[in-house]
Amino acid sequence: MTESSAAVPPSDEARLARAALMRAGESGDPLLGRLIEVCGPVEALAQIREGELTAEISRRLAHDRGRTLRDLQAKVTGWRTRLLAADPERDLLVGRERGARLVVPGDIEWPSQLDDLGAGRPTGLWVEGEADLRFSCLRSVAIVGARAATPYGVHVASEMGAELGQEGWTVVSGGAYGVDSAAHRGALTTEAPTVAVLACGTDYCYPSGHHDLFAVIRERGVLISESPPGAHPTRSRFLIRNRLIAALSRGTVVAEAAVRSGALNTVNHALALHRHIGAVPGPVTSESSAGCHALLRQGKAQCVTNAAEVLDLIGAIGADLAPEPKGTVIPLDSLSPEARAVLDAIPSRGPGAGPATIAVAAGIDIQTALSRLGALAAAGYVQHGRQGWRLRDRR
Amino acid sequence: MTESSAAVPPSDEARLARAALMRAGESGDPLLGRLIEVCGPVEALAQIREGELTAEISRRLAHDRGRTLRDLQAKVTGWRTRLLAADPERDLLVGRERGARLVVPGDIEWPSQLDDLGAGRPTGLWVEGEADLRFSCLRSVAIVGARAATPYGVHVASEMGAELGQEGWTVVSGGAYGVDSAAHRGALTTEAPTVAVLACGTDYCYPSGHHDLFAVIRERGVLISESPPGAHPTRSRFLIRNRLIAALSRGTVVAEAAVRSGALNTVNHALALHRHIGAVPGPVTSESSAGCHALLRQGKAQCVTNAAEVLDLIGAIGADLAPEPKGTVIPLDSLSPEARAVLDAIPSRGPGAGPATIAVAAGIDIQTALSRLGALAAAGYVQHGRQGWRLRDRR
Repeated sequence: MTESSAAVPPSDEARLARAALMRAGESGDPLLGRLIEVCGPVEALAQIREGELTAEISRRLAHDRGRTLRDLQAKVTGWRTRLLAADPERDLLVGRERGARLVVPGDIEWPSQLDDLGAGRPTGLWVEGEADLRFSCLRSVAIVGARAATPYGVHVASEMGAELGQEGWTVVSGGAYGVDSAAHRGALTTEAPTVAVLACGTDYCYPSGHHDLFAVIRERGVLISESPPGAHPTRSRFLIRNRLIAALSRGTVVAEAAVRSGALNTVNHALALHRHIGAVPGPVTSESSAGCHALLRQGKAQCVTNAAEVLDLIGAIGADLAPEPKGTVIPLDSLSPEARAVLDAIPSRGPGAGPATIAVAAGIDIQTALSRLGALAAAGYVQHGRQGWRLRDRR
Repeated sequence: MTESSAAVPPSDEARLARAALMRAGESGDPLLGRLIEVCGPVEALAQIREGELTAEISRRLAHDRGRTLRDLQAKVTGWRTRLLAADPERDLLVGRERGARLVVPGDIEWPSQLDDLGAGRPTGLWVEGEADLRFSCLRSVAIVGARAATPYGVHVASEMGAELGQEGWTVVSGGAYGVDSAAHRGALTTEAPTVAVLACGTDYCYPSGHHDLFAVIRERGVLISESPPGAHPTRSRFLIRNRLIAALSRGTVVAEAAVRSGALNTVNHALALHRHIGAVPGPVTSESSAGCHALLRQGKAQCVTNAAEVLDLIGAIGADLAPEPKGTVIPLDSLSPEARAVLDAIPSRGPGAGPATIAVAAGIDIQTALSRLGALAAAGYVQHGRQGWRLRDRR
């Protein structure tokens, strides 16, 4: 890869190019993703606007993705056509007006676990809400399940969401009716943020009955989407969206799902990403739990009946996963002097402190302070709340 | 072992000796079991009546079971004391009067899978009822669970019992309130026999509320016990009885059980015997299913939600198990001429035929006919109903 998410912050030009590319290709298009990987967003955009890729890039992409050159050219032509109708500067302007920020790889708020999606990594994410997406997702669990949930499924999802939130874990879900909203609502009864991954623009509010729920999530967590503000949900966007739910979180729990449930699509993404899966059992007399039981029978999921068992599972996942981005998981006695200074600068009581305050108190520059705060958050020492940084009780 | 269950039928003297030895030792005492293995029931009884074992036998038993000679002598003295109060001839007489037969190793009705218990194999079993114990248990599943079952547990156990019965499988359980009786009752709605393994004499009727249930099981299945007619249930008898439920059946399914349930004792016996285990999930909000969920989480049990899934599991067990007694599992095209003749002699319709009728029709003696019928039953070709032998629909 030519671009690491922990590297130099993206330029305005790169951000604008990504906004354009998000209009050019479908979300998650691995060919476009590979093109951006290979030559960066600015050059990728320039070549698409030319109407053809350079011979070397063409050969490389065709080889990497198993495409013919003709097939590749057809894709480029399609992207170019869609670009003609795109106005990325307006997208950024509209986003800003509506309170949404475009977070792209290289941004400090970019959740680097999305890099596990490889070429299917999002080109960018529209994020709306008070919480920090990256920090919120460092200790996060996806809770998914049926829209047509039974009272049992709703109860299980909201209890689990609340228990996980109490333990300082973020609930990631899809903002839909049924299990999704129950999980978000459970989490919202605690101080933890919750993350809703939408298949439409973050301002669109689908389903419309969730206007109030989304308003609270904006205040206490984040709404995110690959689609720009104003975009309608489509069937394909729901499916492609599911990979983000799986990739953002350390593990996915299916609270209630029938045999043919969209939640199982999320499970398949999570399996492909080597995240582990939990399934909540239910009455065998309920078709609405049959998908969970099938996952247990197939050995794809571990049986989980409460949040403690979910965290057991996630703990195991933490150990199994690819190592965290370097420097983020640090035992207390081996913290760097700078990290130690940042930790000491964070008030142990009260609503929290902003990064500038912390930087001054620690005697370092704000950029270093933000970097150390990220590492400390990943290691579970600190958390980012609505009113700034504060210490987290260690489990 | 000096005594094979498939060998010569036991003599009257051996049967009487076993009846006496069942009075001498506690059920399942592996030291007594080993003594009988080593020198046979008649000689074992004679040595106990002497008050001491021969030097050679003493050394061998002490070595085999990791006992001191003094410890061994104390056991022998205890057995001898209890023998003084025993009247095995009366036991056989009382049993006969009350309709119970003593089935011992070597009898054609002896279920040879009990030999997997090794030295803990029962000395003999009191059997009451119309069905044949050995044939009933060839294709059998244990369904166990809580006495204090919820309506959900009762529903699951009775449905599963009925579905297994419909598929021609025998339900083995403990005759207790709750899950046990629901499983028996489910099975009794079909033509399949059911086997209740009791911790008291087969005539004692514990719990007393099961008088009618036991009456029906006597007619359509069997009640069995290691304790002689008239014996009361004791706490230790319940626990030691559980090993028989596990050993008789090809697999054990826990329909509903809390974390501290006696059903889990049966599961541990089944695990020790390398039988596989199924657990039925239930609502995570129900403490009564927490034992099942724990089994799933520990990887001790497979998740099963209906009889078809139980039979999938049992099928796998069949393949994994120690081979069936020789000659019992025979593909249709490799049946011996005698077995073929017996199969042809069994009426394909109607209530069934007795072994004498079949022997005449097949042109062989009745002992050979019985042996071939056993083999054919084990292979799933025929079954023994209330009115004789008939063909079984092949699955």
